[in-house]
Amino acid sequence: MTTRPTVFPGAYAASALQHLRQASPLVHCITNDVVQSITANVLLALGASPAMVVDPREAAQFSAMASALLVNVGTLTESRAESMLAAIHAANQAQKPWVLDPVAVGALSWRSEFCQEIIRLQPAAIRGNASEIMALSGLAASGRGVDSADTSLAALPAAQTLARQTGAIIAVTGEIDYVTDGENSVSVPGGNVLMTRVVGTGCALSAVVAAFTSLPGDRLANVAAACRVMSRAGELACEVAKGPGSFTPAFMDNLYLLDAEKLNGGAL
Amino acid sequence: MTTRPTVFPGAYAASALQHLRQASPLVHCITNDVVQSITANVLLALGASPAMVVDPREAAQFSAMASALLVNVGTLTESRAESMLAAIHAANQAQKPWVLDPVAVGALSWRSEFCQEIIRLQPAAIRGNASEIMALSGLAASGRGVDSADTSLAALPAAQTLARQTGAIIAVTGEIDYVTDGENSVSVPGGNVLMTRVVGTGCALSAVVAAFTSLPGDRLANVAAACRVMSRAGELACEVAKGPGSFTPAFMDNLYLLDAEKLNGGAL
Amino acid sequence: MTTRPTVFPGAYAASALQHLRQASPLVHCITNDVVQSITANVLLALGASPAMVVDPREAAQFSAMASALLVNVGTLTESRAESMLAAIHAANQAQKPWVLDPVAVGALSWRSEFCQEIIRLQPAAIRGNASEIMALSGLAASGRGVDSADTSLAALPAAQTLARQTGAIIAVTGEIDYVTDGENSVSVPGGNVLMTRVVGTGCALSAVVAAFTSLPGDRLANVAAACRVMSRAGELACEVAKGPGSFTPAFMDNLYLLDAEKLNGGAL
Repeated sequence: MTTRPTVFPGAYAASALQHLRQASPLVHCITNDVVQSITANVLLALGASPAMVVDPREAAQFSAMASALLVNVGTLTESRAESMLAAIHAANQAQKPWVLDPVAVGALSWRSEFCQEIIRLQPAAIRGNASEIMALSGLAASGRGVDSADTSLAALPAAQTLARQTGAIIAVTGEIDYVTDGENSVSVPGGNVLMTRVVGTGCALSAVVAAFTSLPGDRLANVAAACRVMSRAGELACEVAKGPGSFTPAFMDNLYLLDAEKLNGGAL
Repeated sequence: MTTRPTVFPGAYAASALQHLRQASPLVHCITNDVVQSITANVLLALGASPAMVVDPREAAQFSAMASALLVNVGTLTESRAESMLAAIHAANQAQKPWVLDPVAVGALSWRSEFCQEIIRLQPAAIRGNASEIMALSGLAASGRGVDSADTSLAALPAAQTLARQTGAIIAVTGEIDYVTDGENSVSVPGGNVLMTRVVGTGCALSAVVAAFTSLPGDRLANVAAACRVMSRAGELACEVAKGPGSFTPAFMDNLYLLDAEKLNGGAL
Repeated sequence: MTTRPTVFPGAYAASALQHLRQASPLVHCITNDVVQSITANVLLALGASPAMVVDPREAAQFSAMASALLVNVGTLTESRAESMLAAIHAANQAQKPWVLDPVAVGALSWRSEFCQEIIRLQPAAIRGNASEIMALSGLAASGRGVDSADTSLAALPAAQTLARQTGAIIAVTGEIDYVTDGENSVSVPGGNVLMTRVVGTGCALSAVVAAFTSLPGDRLANVAAACRVMSRAGELACEVAKGPGSFTPAFMDNLYLLDAEKLNGGAL
């Protein structure tokens, strides 16, 4: 049913990153309480502009102005859910892309219902770990919410199904990331297990995916470029980090300093 | 009335940390807005898994799944208080330990009433500074909420009273930490005044205490081990830090790299 | 209409910082979700004490106890707006200074109305970028909310008007900062473009401004001292930083280590 995904070409990531820095997209992030700071800092380091506007009225007004919208359900509340819906509808009306990070979907009932509701509202992309993507596609997941007990490759069929159901690009991330539109799929290597010991690297990736969906060109390739930019900066940071503490400053510096040469020197 | 507390043996801390890393407990944190990121990163660096789930429905569902629950009242709101109560009841029903960090209790009326209400709900442990523990036990405190003007030793009698009132292990932390079950008490040296210039080191310790209460074995010793793991990583970080900025990455790295040898090389 | 602002003398900044460390003011911050941690850490590094109390009842009780209040509308919500109003009234009643950071005012309707309402409540100071200060003064702004497309000098007339309208000291910050009471104005050089790639440096400055407004002496000079302390620590951090990741720890260390010699060695 599915063909083996091809490895995503590093040269495209460098070119997409250059476009991102020129465009400096404004990314409206309605995200969870834990990762607000790292999300904003990752976007700033890459040359994008973050803004976290959460009141329902303001969220709708702001989504129409922003280049892209991120919706992350990590610390969902009633009022936050209301803001997300208002922002998604405004983004759709203004033809701005929006991206879902379905944190812990499958493990918790209310957010699972909420995510099933909003994936009908034409997300441009969905970024999650294997358990989350499997749960969202209707396949059983074994995770306990925040970590993924499944490998990303095992979730590729679920990602392809979800892509066909929603029309979104699906990125299922893990030791290797897989990005698919339901027909074509690419793999993105890189990253490091140390990144799983720092909170918010996955959530920040979803914000970067949102930034890249605002660029012109092939959306599948742009989402894969977002994954590669983050995994390559992570690889470079791990070359100097002694642990998760020194990883974070090095990761931000590498996002800021990343260029075509650095992007091509890695696993790709 | 009270015997002089004995110094907690460092070898036990190393053994408890090894158990923690094997068990990798999932700690449900309902904590304050300021320290969410450092709390999650400290737990991840030690090998535990954090999750911050805050909607009342989801908090109750999640507490029953998690290994332990942390309740920190630093930025208490009506809806957060409702979530905390739901999570505490669910944790108790599922026989999972929960830990209270009574930030600024005594200084502010509403949270003082709320804390007096929830300490009747069988906390496994309570971690606070001298002013907070004195206020919670009914003794007068001199603090202005966030800092402690009293020394931890002066608060030991209050801690012992509070332990007998609630059945919880009480950790009163400061330059030296004291941990008591009302009968037996131990002291935990280490740490550094620089840690008071970084927000969330105390709040993150409470999350680590929650993680350690989920381990089998003597709970007093496990809570003291949590204190020692944090104070020793702090000592090691201060050996290389130039200030509170460089302290934080070094602290996280040391939590990640901590082993029996490093734990035994310190003040204990 | 306006005379060219004079350069603020560095020696005064050193003296004000010394007073700040002696007084260790308790700063009540009702600020946005994204910058809570950096705001608290900046205040702690400088020797002040931060506290984030947000429930309306508690906010009013706490404002009266604190040395100064910061109100930052970055992630404004209904309940947060209610807390801010309660805290401002309590601060005014207790004769404690309060400071406004009007994040993204002008770009979003509801917060613009809210800010127009509260600037009538006698703020001691207002700190914003050029777009925000122009919008607040009633002059048209070209910003899209979070970044400023206008230079700080272009906004100086608007700042002077706003100072006369409100009685507050206005700090309009950018590559060079301008501080005015409507009659007298000073310029504060320093800082670095790298600081715009780290979230919260401006918001944290507003908290530092609040801390400095609690000091005795000339308020215009104290607000300028707050700007200079931050810009000088930023300059020193940029001498060693490779990017925005390594900037942050170096910035915090420099705030902690800042003294008269370091303050006088810079651009002033």
